[in-house]
Amino acid sequence: MSDPSSDFLAADWGTSNLRAWRLSAEGKVLDVRRFPWGVAHLQPGEAARKLKDEVRPALQAQELPAILCGMVGSAMGIAAAPYADCPAGGAELAKNLFKVDDLTAIVPGLRCTRPDGYLDVIRGEETKVLGWLALDAKRASGDHVLCLPGTHGKWVLVRDGRIHHFMTCMSGELFALLNEHSVLKTGAAPSDEASFAEGLEFGAADGPLASRLFTVRARMVGQGLEGGKAASYLSGLLIGDETAHLPPLLGLRAGSVIGLMGEPALCDLYAPALKAQGLTVEMADGEAAVIAGLTSLRKQGAKA
Amino acid sequence: MSDPSSDFLAADWGTSNLRAWRLSAEGKVLDVRRFPWGVAHLQPGEAARKLKDEVRPALQAQELPAILCGMVGSAMGIAAAPYADCPAGGAELAKNLFKVDDLTAIVPGLRCTRPDGYLDVIRGEETKVLGWLALDAKRASGDHVLCLPGTHGKWVLVRDGRIHHFMTCMSGELFALLNEHSVLKTGAAPSDEASFAEGLEFGAADGPLASRLFTVRARMVGQGLEGGKAASYLSGLLIGDETAHLPPLLGLRAGSVIGLMGEPALCDLYAPALKAQGLTVEMADGEAAVIAGLTSLRKQGAKA
Repeated sequence: MSDPSSDFLAADWGTSNLRAWRLSAEGKVLDVRRFPWGVAHLQPGEAARKLKDEVRPALQAQELPAILCGMVGSAMGIAAAPYADCPAGGAELAKNLFKVDDLTAIVPGLRCTRPDGYLDVIRGEETKVLGWLALDAKRASGDHVLCLPGTHGKWVLVRDGRIHHFMTCMSGELFALLNEHSVLKTGAAPSDEASFAEGLEFGAADGPLASRLFTVRARMVGQGLEGGKAASYLSGLLIGDETAHLPPLLGLRAGSVIGLMGEPALCDLYAPALKAQGLTVEMADGEAAVIAGLTSLRKQGAKA
Repeated sequence: MSDPSSDFLAADWGTSNLRAWRLSAEGKVLDVRRFPWGVAHLQPGEAARKLKDEVRPALQAQELPAILCGMVGSAMGIAAAPYADCPAGGAELAKNLFKVDDLTAIVPGLRCTRPDGYLDVIRGEETKVLGWLALDAKRASGDHVLCLPGTHGKWVLVRDGRIHHFMTCMSGELFALLNEHSVLKTGAAPSDEASFAEGLEFGAADGPLASRLFTVRARMVGQGLEGGKAASYLSGLLIGDETAHLPPLLGLRAGSVIGLMGEPALCDLYAPALKAQGLTVEMADGEAAVIAGLTSLRKQGAKA
């Protein structure tokens, strides 16, 4: 991967967005650009052309080594980089970097068997988790959990500095589907804190989710719940189900510490939900983490 | 309600379908017609016109008393019949019949507070449950549970001959949404028994549903699960979550008896799921039940 002391191009290239940096060998940000070219919006072959014709020139990085993470490593992106298996830390990820050409590498996604016995996959979050580990030495040993909420949110268990397993939770997609296309649709965005809190509490109850969800409809019909209040209640139900029932599967209990990384608007919903379960929430900066992760992998890859 | 010994018109008029019978005072079927006029397909005012201009003439019932149940009693149908409150048996339903005109009455829907504290509503199923009670004297005392699977499935607890409470479970709608509009969409109908059984087992596990659902995607990506197999696995997950986690909320345990009433294709999925939870399943005939329920309410309404 050429001179390990040179600047390099780093990119977090997901389904919806692309952020790219020119970084020093030590991970110092020398330049940054954001582009609206999430791979979901690109035609086959377009991602590779955008990288060469637009992203590299914009960061004066035509001849620099590049390391990319996220869905750019899927069939929708530049190429389908194979998944590596858990447990995996920096060494395993670096060993499995997928070389697109002499200058360009893509971080592999990860595959694991979850504690409940099911298979799961991530692509992009592994790099953030690696950076999150690199940014605090206390996480190098023992068990640590990071929650990354989103359309397909991830809950990642790190053990002794390596990603041990993780669980994807599609609460974000379920919310959008139900709020836009189901009998529960509200025609509104969430807008009411009290209704969200009520949903959180009900979402944490037992019983099938499909039954708890119908209380949105019953309250629309029976109590006139509507619009942004109904949307907040629905959002609370889904996040309540997730934050009450997932942590125990990762060994968390009241008093445990959990990292939380994501869009501020989402973290504002998840932080009180996690605290309501007795967890101690440590906010984490996603941009700093992905930069640290890519820098670490660039170093290890260059040595390899 | 005119002469209680006369024939009468009875109709089960739901969101998608309309079945109408000319019945003797004792509930003997003298004639039957099916129409494709579920209230979801009708314009405002159309249901009342269809009843007068098409349904009554087709059954030679222009001057007969009529009793209707189902979503025809909502704002989408002929008129919004108010909900009655649980607990409610035949007497309470008959007392709350909603008179549209001198000849025509609509059975009220029911509203209850569920065992988990949430509000719920039904409209149409109350009449089937009443008929199910009338068809077997052993159900007149003690607790009995009837499961009516569907787009919005219902689980009804009867205590001493009256509907005590119930829970709606929207597994059917969730399946359609996810299979057609989500990242889990398969482009196929369920077609594989083994995949369904596997989904059932995984659906019964702990943890947030939104996390267990993502195993469909992970298995598509990681193991090549696709088409009808993936759809069956998804269907199994949702029905597994429902049948494993709802019965305990209604006091059912291994060895309990549960009634099952619905479309044969759906009952074929729910019967093995309920049996896998150790329940003893008693199949029930929905058409016989709605006829018995409407006949019983017609008698009690005519007396009132």
